[in-house]
Amino acid sequence: MFRPGTRNLITDVPGFTVGHATDDRVVSGVTVLVCGGGRPAAVDVRGGGPGTRETDVLAPENLVGRAHAIVLAGGSVFGLAAADGVAASLSVNDVGLKLTQGSPAIPIVPAAVLHDLANGGDKAWGLDPPYRRLGVLALQAAGQEFSLGSVGAGRGAMAGVNKGGIGSASIDLGAGIVVGALVAVNSIGSAMMPGGTAYWAWPFELDAEFGGAGPPAAPLGAHPDNADPAPDDSRLLAAGRMQPGANTTLGVVACSAELTTVECKRVAMMAQDGIARAVRPAHTPFDGDTVFALSGCSAALDANHRRAAHVGRIGSAAADCLARAIARAVHHAGSNPTRSVEPPRR
Amino acid sequence: MFRPGTRNLITDVPGFTVGHATDDRVVSGVTVLVCGGGRPAAVDVRGGGPGTRETDVLAPENLVGRAHAIVLAGGSVFGLAAADGVAASLSVNDVGLKLTQGSPAIPIVPAAVLHDLANGGDKAWGLDPPYRRLGVLALQAAGQEFSLGSVGAGRGAMAGVNKGGIGSASIDLGAGIVVGALVAVNSIGSAMMPGGTAYWAWPFELDAEFGGAGPPAAPLGAHPDNADPAPDDSRLLAAGRMQPGANTTLGVVACSAELTTVECKRVAMMAQDGIARAVRPAHTPFDGDTVFALSGCSAALDANHRRAAHVGRIGSAAADCLARAIARAVHHAGSNPTRSVEPPRR
Repeated sequence: MFRPGTRNLITDVPGFTVGHATDDRVVSGVTVLVCGGGRPAAVDVRGGGPGTRETDVLAPENLVGRAHAIVLAGGSVFGLAAADGVAASLSVNDVGLKLTQGSPAIPIVPAAVLHDLANGGDKAWGLDPPYRRLGVLALQAAGQEFSLGSVGAGRGAMAGVNKGGIGSASIDLGAGIVVGALVAVNSIGSAMMPGGTAYWAWPFELDAEFGGAGPPAAPLGAHPDNADPAPDDSRLLAAGRMQPGANTTLGVVACSAELTTVECKRVAMMAQDGIARAVRPAHTPFDGDTVFALSGCSAALDANHRRAAHVGRIGSAAADCLARAIARAVHHAGSNPTRSVEPPRR
Repeated sequence: MFRPGTRNLITDVPGFTVGHATDDRVVSGVTVLVCGGGRPAAVDVRGGGPGTRETDVLAPENLVGRAHAIVLAGGSVFGLAAADGVAASLSVNDVGLKLTQGSPAIPIVPAAVLHDLANGGDKAWGLDPPYRRLGVLALQAAGQEFSLGSVGAGRGAMAGVNKGGIGSASIDLGAGIVVGALVAVNSIGSAMMPGGTAYWAWPFELDAEFGGAGPPAAPLGAHPDNADPAPDDSRLLAAGRMQPGANTTLGVVACSAELTTVECKRVAMMAQDGIARAVRPAHTPFDGDTVFALSGCSAALDANHRRAAHVGRIGSAAADCLARAIARAVHHAGSNPTRSVEPPRR
């Protein structure tokens, strides 16, 4: 049987670190994944209200196809500035593309943001939103250990009508192949099955990593919400959440296997299935669901197998890890005593 | 509580009919959904080995964005010819775009095919593959009632290591809004959870429509395949199935609500989540997973709600229906006594 890595975090994949910066007054924050140099990366955007930066540079048909860090941020469009802080800090440390002698290093820092502007925090920042500064701080905090739950980009997040947050998980597939996921869950859909006791992701849980509640206690067919495709719509509408870009699940998956940019793209596409399995509904017009996929390039693939078979297996593992990370995010956010369960009604 | 439509088939959506043509000697076939005139349509291709026709005409930025019929076919690339037969037959009946007086009607017949060339049927068709003829016959057979299981485009299909086939399901959301799905399941992934007693789609089952087996009997964590992201890889490799384009889930979702082409696109994207929830792994490099979405335009949306909220709810219902249709396909195919459980080893 396959097991999670030693930390059950995306940082079990060698070469990656994660840092958070959280502003409790603003009720928002930034999370950064640092790649330790340019690594093959791709992105798959499937939500109807995305907020992103430097996604085109990762398109397989374009030149670079690599990233030096990935930024996840609260703050909606203002959160995109977090990548400015990360890019400037990395460049000062000489991390980035070196195109011309004497020019600064050019770090590629793709970013995606979630909407947490209406969660009761102090958003009266006028001309000086805090995200650039939070990006710098998150980068300084990066390490192999990091917190889950109501921190960083997940500090102000909601998962449907429950508190959202930051989650992570990993799996060791043997032969040096480790796959991990990092997620900020701010979905309009719910991570809980109707009835509210079981996570949608329960079949994928390892070692009671999100509470070990298992499948729903009662037969689901008996629950009146079972056949409702959007059971929380009226509550979400009242909370002002039925807005384009007002919700989002932001995921990053990473693997140790040496993959090309196009192979990372397929892994990112497959990893979206982890969102589908852990959140219902997902990929709605109101979500900005985005998944980045990275290769750490620390392990060669077994040359006796077709590369596409490896990619399919890694993509499936990435989907599993992302589903587990989503449930862990909600689990850890829910156990944080500072949580605010509902955003203010407008 | 919401209930399936009267037939629990995609034909519960007014204006759509479905027909099959099956060739038991070839062990293949064709399924056609007829739209009763040009209807807003979109498509979302997510598999790594698709085989399609007339998908570009459905791109939201292009002119037409409508379809007169959708063809699902076995036969890999040869199956695309089924759409020729359907297009010619529709045109003879004056169904299609009328661009210039005196010219034949021009039917838009998007199609997607699945690979069933190695399933033991007689494929020695040389210069005369049967699919054009099967397309004509499927169109002639179209009606509101149609069979599920090992028929039409699903006649030669496999769902992982189990028999695949044709499935369908519907849901009545009230106020005239009916959503339905049609699917041909030939996935590399399994529709069954580890242990083989429960369908992945079990949470979505209504009225014991695929056997009523419910959730897995034993805790899943005890099953050695639980954490394996691709538990059937070795059996599928031995069966020659680990090939690009060798597997595919082809879906069509339809709703009665009047949607635009771009709204159909979002519904098709959300419906892919039904594949993710009902099949694991899905969207691999070896699958050609493709979902079409159509609007029957027989019901106006409630103008008191935002259109995007309607689209999200319809998309979520489409995902549910597609997940249920996938489980019904495998359920009905498995109860067919003529099934061949494994393709010949090569």
